[in-house]
Amino acid sequence: MEPHEQPPQVRSRRERPAKPALTREGIIAAALTILRDEGLETVTMRRLAAALDTGAASLYVYVHDTEDLHAQLLDALLGSVADAVPVDSPWRERIAAVLTSYVHILFEYPGIARLTLLTQPSAPNYLALIDLLIALLGEGGIPDRDAAWAVDLLLQFATATAAEQSVRKRSARVVADIASLSDTIATINAARYPNIARLGSELTGGGGARFRWGLDVLLAGIIATPRAPLASDPQVNE
Amino acid sequence: MEPHEQPPQVRSRRERPAKPALTREGIIAAALTILRDEGLETVTMRRLAAALDTGAASLYVYVHDTEDLHAQLLDALLGSVADAVPVDSPWRERIAAVLTSYVHILFEYPGIARLTLLTQPSAPNYLALIDLLIALLGEGGIPDRDAAWAVDLLLQFATATAAEQSVRKRSARVVADIASLSDTIATINAARYPNIARLGSELTGGGGARFRWGLDVLLAGIIATPRAPLASDPQVNE
Repeated sequence: MEPHEQPPQVRSRRERPAKPALTREGIIAAALTILRDEGLETVTMRRLAAALDTGAASLYVYVHDTEDLHAQLLDALLGSVADAVPVDSPWRERIAAVLTSYVHILFEYPGIARLTLLTQPSAPNYLALIDLLIALLGEGGIPDRDAAWAVDLLLQFATATAAEQSVRKRSARVVADIASLSDTIATINAARYPNIARLGSELTGGGGARFRWGLDVLLAGIIATPRAPLASDPQVNE
Repeated sequence: MEPHEQPPQVRSRRERPAKPALTREGIIAAALTILRDEGLETVTMRRLAAALDTGAASLYVYVHDTEDLHAQLLDALLGSVADAVPVDSPWRERIAAVLTSYVHILFEYPGIARLTLLTQPSAPNYLALIDLLIALLGEGGIPDRDAAWAVDLLLQFATATAAEQSVRKRSARVVADIASLSDTIATINAARYPNIARLGSELTGGGGARFRWGLDVLLAGIIATPRAPLASDPQVNE
């Protein structure tokens, strides 16, 4: 209630203005607001029902439970990933643009990256992302059966990177861990860990350059590593 | 209490046989038993104190809190990873053996893989694992500054794979997700997702062969991708 607003009159239901009808889009938009402001743990059916001034029972038509809600949130977030593809760039740059956009989205919404890593999304926008990445790998000359596994590897790398970064963003404890790792490396017992001592501060840091290098490593490796046939593969003329 | 055991007599502290003295090793061994039997969520200071027939306060000398306990558990588990290195094999096979052993250990103890992914371990055995991997990359001719980032990429891949698999092992919901992903792929709208429809069942499955392929991709990519100098790099003659 705004400070200067009058207390609501008790009115019959008939007189009150109708609440806006619930829609899937409206529910997801409200959930995204809670997610962005308060973090994933807060996005529950009950909290969402309160935000929408309705009962949890009214939401069940659109969302089965909190897990389903989180899955739908993730998919809503992924709707804009494909927009990041620059039209006239080579396939590698387009893959890098898609995955960088994906990491930024996951990173912006705490908890979502971890969720993505530990479940296997199968909603429309995630499927569209997989489909797009396979198409871009195909443009790069990657055979279909290599692309089928490569797409998983690329998404795992991007998701794990976002999950690590967003945990570090949120947790003071983890920030202390990173400081302590840098300290550990700086003062490490060189007799016991000679290689860590030699590499020193090269081991930490790098940020965006490190992500891009990881992506280049994966793409170069995917090109260089045709899959061996599996024992269970059908005998086909390829 | 065993079924046929007599109820304990009330005796003075002086008469009771001395409890075994608490040691770090004894505490970690008890925690590992709880972890293996009941999962990571159950491994708390309170539960551990009960298992050791002591008070939580007595544990604080050795373990600061539950988070520290989990970190020490992980490090205890990693003690045997280096044992997996076959002595006379080429460097790639030795890296594969180390990381496969690491994944198996994480996979065996539910929750540990997720923990590893979201924190940055800096305890002795984890440092030894990093040191060993850098040495093996060096044997493969990978320059130090590439190895410094490569070791992180390899461990991230192994940890994320173990985390995904151990979640899938534990969660009926996730098993349903996988079934539903296979179903989704089998019946997918080929007009909307033409690449997924074409690849079909190639996208799922593969198990250990998929892990090994991912590892081969990473190593081939690391060899093929020397890091560009960073703008912040000192000018040195290398």
